[in-house]
Amino acid sequence: MAKKVLIIGAVALGPKVACRLRRLDPQLEITLIDRDDIISYGGCGIPYYVGGDINDIEDLCKTTSHALRDEAFFENCKGIRVLTRVEAKEINRRQKQVKVCNLETGEETLLPYDKLVLATGASAFRPPFPGSGLPRVFTVSDLHEAKNLKTLMSTGKVSRAVVVGAGAIGLEITEALTDLWGIATTLVEMEDQVLPTLLGKCIARVAAGELQKHGVELLLEARVLEVSENPETGKLTVKTSKKSLEVDIVVLAAGVRPNTALAREAGLALGTSGGISVDQRMRTSDPNIYAGGDCVEVRNLISGENMLMALGSLANRQGRIIATNISGGQSHFKGTVGTFCLKLFELGVSKAGLTYRQAKETGFDPVYGVVSQADHAHFYPSSELIYISLLADRKSRKILGIEAAGKNGDAVKARVDTIAVLLDHGLHVDEVCSLEIGYAPPFASAMDVINNAGNALDNILAGNNRPIDAADFLYEFVHKTTRIIDVRGEKEAAPFKAKYGARWVNIPQDQLRRRYSEIPGNEPFFLICDTGPRSYEAQVFLSSRGITNTRNIQGGFAMIKVTDPTFI
Amino acid sequence: MAKKVLIIGAVALGPKVACRLRRLDPQLEITLIDRDDIISYGGCGIPYYVGGDINDIEDLCKTTSHALRDEAFFENCKGIRVLTRVEAKEINRRQKQVKVCNLETGEETLLPYDKLVLATGASAFRPPFPGSGLPRVFTVSDLHEAKNLKTLMSTGKVSRAVVVGAGAIGLEITEALTDLWGIATTLVEMEDQVLPTLLGKCIARVAAGELQKHGVELLLEARVLEVSENPETGKLTVKTSKKSLEVDIVVLAAGVRPNTALAREAGLALGTSGGISVDQRMRTSDPNIYAGGDCVEVRNLISGENMLMALGSLANRQGRIIATNISGGQSHFKGTVGTFCLKLFELGVSKAGLTYRQAKETGFDPVYGVVSQADHAHFYPSSELIYISLLADRKSRKILGIEAAGKNGDAVKARVDTIAVLLDHGLHVDEVCSLEIGYAPPFASAMDVINNAGNALDNILAGNNRPIDAADFLYEFVHKTTRIIDVRGEKEAAPFKAKYGARWVNIPQDQLRRRYSEIPGNEPFFLICDTGPRSYEAQVFLSSRGITNTRNIQGGFAMIKVTDPTFI
Repeated sequence: MAKKVLIIGAVALGPKVACRLRRLDPQLEITLIDRDDIISYGGCGIPYYVGGDINDIEDLCKTTSHALRDEAFFENCKGIRVLTRVEAKEINRRQKQVKVCNLETGEETLLPYDKLVLATGASAFRPPFPGSGLPRVFTVSDLHEAKNLKTLMSTGKVSRAVVVGAGAIGLEITEALTDLWGIATTLVEMEDQVLPTLLGKCIARVAAGELQKHGVELLLEARVLEVSENPETGKLTVKTSKKSLEVDIVVLAAGVRPNTALAREAGLALGTSGGISVDQRMRTSDPNIYAGGDCVEVRNLISGENMLMALGSLANRQGRIIATNISGGQSHFKGTVGTFCLKLFELGVSKAGLTYRQAKETGFDPVYGVVSQADHAHFYPSSELIYISLLADRKSRKILGIEAAGKNGDAVKARVDTIAVLLDHGLHVDEVCSLEIGYAPPFASAMDVINNAGNALDNILAGNNRPIDAADFLYEFVHKTTRIIDVRGEKEAAPFKAKYGARWVNIPQDQLRRRYSEIPGNEPFFLICDTGPRSYEAQVFLSSRGITNTRNIQGGFAMIKVTDPTFI
Repeated sequence: MAKKVLIIGAVALGPKVACRLRRLDPQLEITLIDRDDIISYGGCGIPYYVGGDINDIEDLCKTTSHALRDEAFFENCKGIRVLTRVEAKEINRRQKQVKVCNLETGEETLLPYDKLVLATGASAFRPPFPGSGLPRVFTVSDLHEAKNLKTLMSTGKVSRAVVVGAGAIGLEITEALTDLWGIATTLVEMEDQVLPTLLGKCIARVAAGELQKHGVELLLEARVLEVSENPETGKLTVKTSKKSLEVDIVVLAAGVRPNTALAREAGLALGTSGGISVDQRMRTSDPNIYAGGDCVEVRNLISGENMLMALGSLANRQGRIIATNISGGQSHFKGTVGTFCLKLFELGVSKAGLTYRQAKETGFDPVYGVVSQADHAHFYPSSELIYISLLADRKSRKILGIEAAGKNGDAVKARVDTIAVLLDHGLHVDEVCSLEIGYAPPFASAMDVINNAGNALDNILAGNNRPIDAADFLYEFVHKTTRIIDVRGEKEAAPFKAKYGARWVNIPQDQLRRRYSEIPGNEPFFLICDTGPRSYEAQVFLSSRGITNTRNIQGGFAMIKVTDPTFI
């Protein structure tokens, strides 16, 4: 008799396991069940469907050749049986069968398996404040809710919104509401920055600047206390710890929780993060049951800790691995370095590895360098600035993480990806300095921004570059009296001299070697130029002349401008 | 007394060494000499200057903050002495001094050194055919010739041109002549493909298709025998082994040769490739003499052989390493994996590692997989196709090289760069399948094209995918009678059925499971779909039904279209 594989969940990982398994083994009986009637869709596309980049919800459910991935598609093209609107209620591991319920008829049956795959995914977290269950309080991890939300907006009845949570989904949905629909949106976040688990403060400030540039109101360190509905107007009043807002809709993007009830009740091991625990072959504590995707926890290869990471790309890669293993092969999923990217209006944001804060908590002694530089040769017409923050451990000089932002998202992601794929190979700062990426003026600099991120960090670790980042500078410049030496040309410096008077000293780079004696050697100074290299060189020169109490503003004016667009 | 560092050559590596050295050691006496009067310029930008993307030749000589990098700049901003129009004639290693000649006055002097750096670069090779020295036969590795060429074209006197050599510079200059100036250009290449040392035949065909799409005439396996000038009209007659052409200019892009005379005459070791031999610290056989950039040979980290690789990015990285070492630090240049990229009209082309041919010659047993897939999520509006050829050694499953092309050059380069940086870490096929690059629909697929390149190669190595590449298919389809099974929809297949009759069998994917018995099991067939996944799945299914004499066309129609735009 043919071996039976039963897969619970038919969105991302489930169909991937089923299809590859069919290709590897034509004899298996493969059954895929899902409680929903829409299956095998690109859930990560929901914000783009809401925002109008994708018109039709069916486009998220189609193959590259425009075939709708429904039950008939899986039956006819793949030889895979799919049961929709069928919910798994209970796993009997001894009998190797799953009790399922047909949600249309209420009928319960038993499905036997030789191998079982849990692809139960994750559900949007609905924070327990009063009113979080009101009809106009949406979540967007569900295609049905997304459809309702879009329908409501398309009637023109939504002019103000609150988005709760400035994580990836929160930012994507904020852009969707603002950009196409012109909805005045307030983004509420508990932490003191956007993307708090994904970015350190430097690049997070760049992302925040982009939101503000597009008219998004950002409420940081704020909590939603209550949402109430005016029964006459239908409007919602959102009471936060900072202010009250009257809006038409609220979108919750407060994270997701892995769907583990079925696994837990079957006595399968769950990890400390709350996800299903799996080994490198993606097997649960029962070797006949595999699990993957948003419902499992994965190992962070930099910190060594297990964590949740709900991402369609991981689900797909894990799905292939599960299929290989079920069919008798040997394939391993080692873990993740947390590579991530995001489009935010005109900005591409990308990161891999740990943030400064996470590195500290893990026990490293983290040091970071920040650079601003064109993505292409500076003399080539199409170039755009990229802002990179590169993090290493002081003693071992091992790279712990990278974050970047810039207008050309593909170019930003390219730099981060080259570091990402090396992170679990014990990448050293020195290797970044010489990293051999492709070079031609339309696509890179001879000394590319990624090499210079390594160079800057190398110079910082060597003590030659004593930096301050743009955010800290902006704070200190307002709250203290430290003066600044601007080594740009007189014309560039003039408006700042006019505004800040004696606090703003201008000595152009080509005059510094003869004029440095004007600088009081015992006074602290900031040093600034356009993007950082000249102020660094000035710092090195001044040090050689005994003027050592300087801090070089990393990434220069370019970084300040995107950190605080209001600074002149 | 301050230590003296003398640097011969002031284009790319020389200035890099000088500037970093000054930052690392304020006491050194640093002298930079060059026989030219234009220094510290972006030589890689010359084709873009010729093609008009860059208007002014001075833009290639300016810093990111628009300062001209001339003698005064180096003196005032960097504290570095630069002598231009000064040629090094002889190195006296015992006395540690260099005899130099002032090219303006003819005066000869001796410059002493403690450490000497050879940054003598490379010169364009002028093939020795009769007429190669005529005034209208240009090379473009020299800023002065580039200027003359551009001046001539801007007078409107050039309507036809021959470019000799389809390497990187040849292709870049062909685009420059064709795109801005509308010059009818014939590209002459000795080998049977463009970019013969850089690409295998698959991606080379894509590049050739792009040239033809833009009206460039391509003469492969052709040699220039003679160029002669009509003294009355000024026109040139170019006699090649294939045909004769009457043109206004000839541009030689037949490669460069390292400038090693000075080193050789001083008794320094040269390598088998003809470049100056250096160790990992970039020291020549004389530990007081360093060398780097286009005049040295570097180690290919995949083949283990030494080779020449004239590239501004290597020069810059090596320059930093030399400076670190001269100042007492420890920095190493291990070698290169030959990462390379190029813009060709609307196409980005990129590669790293060995080509199929080079891998064979090195003694590997190379196998490659080809995929066509969108760079971004297929449901996201901005996506463009990327074509990837991934090469591995059959037994060790180690990746040997990658080549790619596509419209979004940044996205193409991104994929190649992630493989490039892992090549000397012993990257296995399996690691490519799970390579963790950033995922969001605007920038990647959940199972990204780079992962799928790994998957395809994995399936080929496992024997599940029995492929034929587009170029071989096109040849066989014309020269043999093998039939094809097209598993796309009826509408897509209709024009091909009309054209090829019984040779073109159409069984759409969703009918194959019930109609496979129509296929004679002993007859050979090609299998095709849009981009490859459906024809692969069909092959696997047919194999399970005993129909095993099939070959799956890698990259599908998408690959055929860019390989031969005339195939329907």
